Amino acid sequence: MRKLAILLLALFAMPALSDEGMWLLNDPPRDRLKAQYGFDLTDAWLEHARLASVRFNNGGSGSFVSANGLLITNHHIAADALQKLSTAERDLFRDGFYAKTLADELKCPDLELNVLMSIEDVTAKVNAAVKPDMKPAEAFAARRAVMSAVEKESLEETGLRSDVVTLYKGGAYHLYRYKKYTDVRLVMAPEERIAAFGRDVDNFEFPRFGLDVAFFRAYEDGRPAVVKHWFKFSPEGAKEGDLVFVTGHPGTTNRLETIDKLKHRRDATLPFNLARVRAMEAALIQYGERGPENKRRAIADLHEYANGRKALAGQYQGLLNPEVLNEKARLEAALIASVADTPASEPLTNAHDTAVRRIAEVQKVYAEFEKPYNLIENATAFPSVLFTIARDIVRLTAEVGKPNGERLREYRDSNLESLKFELFSPAPIYADLERTKLLTGLTFLAEQLGGEHPLVKQAYGGQSPARKADELLATKLFDPAERKRLVDGGVKAVEESADPMIVFAREMDGSARDLRKRYETEVEEPERQAYAELANVRFAVLGKSVPPDATFTLRLAYGVVKGYEAEGQQVPFATTFGGLYDRAEAQQHKEPFELPERWKTGKARLDLATPYDFVSTADTIGGNSGSPILNRAGEFVGINFDRNRFGLVRNFVYTDVQARHISVHSRGILEALRKLYDCPGLVKELTESE
Amino acid sequence: MRKLAILLLALFAMPALSDEGMWLLNDPPRDRLKAQYGFDLTDAWLEHARLASVRFNNGGSGSFVSANGLLITNHHIAADALQKLSTAERDLFRDGFYAKTLADELKCPDLELNVLMSIEDVTAKVNAAVKPDMKPAEAFAARRAVMSAVEKESLEETGLRSDVVTLYKGGAYHLYRYKKYTDVRLVMAPEERIAAFGRDVDNFEFPRFGLDVAFFRAYEDGRPAVVKHWFKFSPEGAKEGDLVFVTGHPGTTNRLETIDKLKHRRDATLPFNLARVRAMEAALIQYGERGPENKRRAIADLHEYANGRKALAGQYQGLLNPEVLNEKARLEAALIASVADTPASEPLTNAHDTAVRRIAEVQKVYAEFEKPYNLIENATAFPSVLFTIARDIVRLTAEVGKPNGERLREYRDSNLESLKFELFSPAPIYADLERTKLLTGLTFLAEQLGGEHPLVKQAYGGQSPARKADELLATKLFDPAERKRLVDGGVKAVEESADPMIVFAREMDGSARDLRKRYETEVEEPERQAYAELANVRFAVLGKSVPPDATFTLRLAYGVVKGYEAEGQQVPFATTFGGLYDRAEAQQHKEPFELPERWKTGKARLDLATPYDFVSTADTIGGNSGSPILNRAGEFVGINFDRNRFGLVRNFVYTDVQARHISVHSRGILEALRKLYDCPGLVKELTESE
Repeated sequence: MRKLAILLLALFAMPALSDEGMWLLNDPPRDRLKAQYGFDLTDAWLEHARLASVRFNNGGSGSFVSANGLLITNHHIAADALQKLSTAERDLFRDGFYAKTLADELKCPDLELNVLMSIEDVTAKVNAAVKPDMKPAEAFAARRAVMSAVEKESLEETGLRSDVVTLYKGGAYHLYRYKKYTDVRLVMAPEERIAAFGRDVDNFEFPRFGLDVAFFRAYEDGRPAVVKHWFKFSPEGAKEGDLVFVTGHPGTTNRLETIDKLKHRRDATLPFNLARVRAMEAALIQYGERGPENKRRAIADLHEYANGRKALAGQYQGLLNPEVLNEKARLEAALIASVADTPASEPLTNAHDTAVRRIAEVQKVYAEFEKPYNLIENATAFPSVLFTIARDIVRLTAEVGKPNGERLREYRDSNLESLKFELFSPAPIYADLERTKLLTGLTFLAEQLGGEHPLVKQAYGGQSPARKADELLATKLFDPAERKRLVDGGVKAVEESADPMIVFAREMDGSARDLRKRYETEVEEPERQAYAELANVRFAVLGKSVPPDATFTLRLAYGVVKGYEAEGQQVPFATTFGGLYDRAEAQQHKEPFELPERWKTGKARLDLATPYDFVSTADTIGGNSGSPILNRAGEFVGINFDRNRFGLVRNFVYTDVQARHISVHSRGILEALRKLYDCPGLVKELTESE
Repeated sequence: MRKLAILLLALFAMPALSDEGMWLLNDPPRDRLKAQYGFDLTDAWLEHARLASVRFNNGGSGSFVSANGLLITNHHIAADALQKLSTAERDLFRDGFYAKTLADELKCPDLELNVLMSIEDVTAKVNAAVKPDMKPAEAFAARRAVMSAVEKESLEETGLRSDVVTLYKGGAYHLYRYKKYTDVRLVMAPEERIAAFGRDVDNFEFPRFGLDVAFFRAYEDGRPAVVKHWFKFSPEGAKEGDLVFVTGHPGTTNRLETIDKLKHRRDATLPFNLARVRAMEAALIQYGERGPENKRRAIADLHEYANGRKALAGQYQGLLNPEVLNEKARLEAALIASVADTPASEPLTNAHDTAVRRIAEVQKVYAEFEKPYNLIENATAFPSVLFTIARDIVRLTAEVGKPNGERLREYRDSNLESLKFELFSPAPIYADLERTKLLTGLTFLAEQLGGEHPLVKQAYGGQSPARKADELLATKLFDPAERKRLVDGGVKAVEESADPMIVFAREMDGSARDLRKRYETEVEEPERQAYAELANVRFAVLGKSVPPDATFTLRLAYGVVKGYEAEGQQVPFATTFGGLYDRAEAQQHKEPFELPERWKTGKARLDLATPYDFVSTADTIGGNSGSPILNRAGEFVGINFDRNRFGLVRNFVYTDVQARHISVHSRGILEALRKLYDCPGLVKELTESE
């Protein structure tokens, strides 16, 4: 045991002293925080942080910053709502917005927010439903059934949104209960030009100069939500060397994946997705360049694909870097070595090796149908919201006729309210933009599978993709009332519908479901079982000292506010407004470095030394966008909005040598709001709320 | 025979009455022109057109427009030279240029022009060298040897650049002799903004508003070349309904390819190239956005990739359109049917079927190594001019030690002068731009082949692609003197060189040559033999009434100046300057629709009704850029610069329903030069030369 202890020390001494970790709120790193920073993480601190943190269901994070339900998130997380609230005449995304009074606040058509109320470990219950002698398909069905049952029971008991979350890729199951807000209104947003200053050029870069913030307000029963837990907005903000916390919703990491899985990502999944995102981005750029209104319609999509392209490219470069895979190999070897030193080493070692081998085998199977699965079932070949709507209508009406536990997961009872909220959204849909996306997707389908592939032939129906896209765009699903009519009419209405998009979704559904079934039984279930084995090995040796990979659920990360060295230069921990003007000047004020008018004319009013954007070592990933940055006192000192490029490998390994996440400084936010934006009410609420 | 005649009539009646055809100058469509347009194509007309037409060896066409060697081409063909003549301080590409005196004309670092002096049919000579019992590798070597010998002999005899051109993909071999100009000087170019007004948005579109012209002058012995044949610049220009001619250098068409070959293009070649071009374009966009000087450095490359992406996408959509492949199938079936009706039908039918089958088989073989071949031997994985230079040095030094007939084609004696002219070019090379391109290519290599592929491992040498790119960029090949030192030092100097790019080119050369060998013997030679069979079948039935696919050699096309209908609207044959200002206004003068200053301030001076860009039905393709448009009198009435999007399928089928090529009108050119550009000398030379 002493030898083990030494090994463990050697192995995990570094990580133990690093700021790695997106920690579960019900398994927080109290000991590490105490040891590393002398910080006592109390239950009260944690509860407050949990209840004041908010998930933006379109893929980001945010937090309450006043007792009256005022929320802050990133402009790029607000982008979807800003876009949907805009018209050709009033471009809120581009020009910004401020509601002087509550009455001026604009209700978002389909924005749902979640606040995490409780976590319950249901691992035993879930695992009990799956018997060892079950075939993969049976095991998958049994697990799905028990998860849906647990969720439904919880929803009926508590009235709270209830999701069973798979942790450690199958090593644990926790039930997350959320309070939902679906009446969310826009309060304030700056101009996109300053929010995303430097746009794609500066994305994933630091030094940085973005005011990537926006404010919303949660409403209940038509009135501003009165919340007990909200973050006090710190007028001083983060200082160099400060210990800071991030409470947000990291989307996906792959740190506990085996090397074979990562190689599969490198050689199949990532190249496919890079090609897909490049095709979509190129098409959207061209669409947008055709005129200002096109640009307005496409811009939020465009930013998302550009961001995705850069993130995926960073991941891909990470996996092409031998140092990253070597580091993974070192960690895996060390784990095996430490297992070998435990009393029950043989069964553990065998279980580990079997699981690793099994996962390697699964990748070979997956490679055979990953592209069709991704294109048809994940619908990347049909990247139009109109197809998403059509498929949801076709499937929803069919699935609700089945027992809850037997449905495709997304149509389980406990999820229907959120699903319908999105399905019946009155947000505008632009036919020409959808056509561009759909044609690009249909074309990409053939690019990936070849023109003779049965799925391509099925999708094209004997026509050119351009004609097919035209045909499908004659759909009436632009109108939420038509969607509702079909859903209310059930299977019969759907079967009788001659709407081209409904017909198409119906025709493709058999192939799509076959691919999904294959994925579930040949990839998802075997991987889940193998990773559960790996998790057990890990638990046996390390306990829960390694947190699970990210799952777009609330996590706590922590780190230190500090600069770093890059290309022989010391990069300070924060930028200033002065730096913003310098950069605009150096770039001759050309797009994407052109400042909004109020920033040009208001320069003299600003204290140019004010901290603007800053970095810390805390462990974040996509989904953390909009996460509050908290100091020891639990005050809001900034808002996370990005990582630097060195942080792009954090999907696979944590590093803090140069990798940093990037936040807007609370002092910078206040300075800008006070001096440049005529929003005294907002400033008062942020600084004087009690 | 009557039945045959009827069949032929049914089959080729339509094409016979259409304006299809990129005709050989030694086999011109006299009968068709006479029948369709009552035009007598005389030898004198043809000789004059041939000798006044010029090939721009960087991939375009042009023509002499004065007796003193004045040349006109497209701005986008001049782009390469403009870019190379520019610096951070003086951006000729962006701002334009005019040389008031001969002394002000700027010598291009590496622009070679060719004027076609004669064509000789050497088919019998080439075919005689290849014996029926030769294996593919032997046949390939024998043909290469005889071609190089013919070229060398011709060069020695005539002093003219001599190229044996393969026509009908192996059905005929003609020897083309060119007069070369390598002292070419820039005379005048407008601003890129007006030359490429609307840029990527309007590329391959009509109505169109680009002044896509530039002027050069050919020099001999340090003095302006005195040329006997040049086109008189028509002040009236083309009128609606006019018969017009295009004498230029169409690059590549695929009209005589079999359906299996086209399907291979659809399912392998085009998706690969689309992915490659998208990756490069995305990388260059990002590089360019980092600042104005980056933009300047990248812009010519960027336009080229954007243009390529749009052209490839158009081809791909063409092959995904069942109507296009159905039309090809109809033509193939009709050919077989007409063969069946000839006296010697059986051997011809058998030869046809065997050839078609053989080509189908070749595609399967090619699919096995097309990606590595394209990436490594065609060097699309190493898209840096520094790699091209390094490889040329490595190969040139090795190849010149072999007999002329045994060398890789590009190092045959008759080609060495042109090759060295390019290799020792003093044009500037920007390290950061080359790094971006190289890193993108190295990454694309792994995307396509996977991280474990031996060629990827060989190229990366155990490093990340980013590190590898950094390593290679330490090369000294930026300096032409270093290149010359290595070439002069021969194999020994190359072998001793520790220059990282030379070392890399050396290391990759074995694999690259293996792939080339495989391509030559398993694809090129069998295809060539099969297409020769097909050509013979075609000749037997149709004679030479179907011209060969394009080969970047001089061709004659003809057509009528006329508009067309699109989306229910009649599109007039020409745009006007008034239309230009309207479009700029509608696009709020935003990039890429911002007019140069002189166009904004000079509007009142222009006759806004002047014809600007116009369309005709003549048959063109990429490579025709810069081709003169001639009227019956052989006068210059415009300059071709693009096709509309309906013309993008012309790689595979000719259509004139909506498909048009686009030209700048000679009257529009004169109006702009006279009213907006202070270049009286140029106008005088254009209008008063005798």
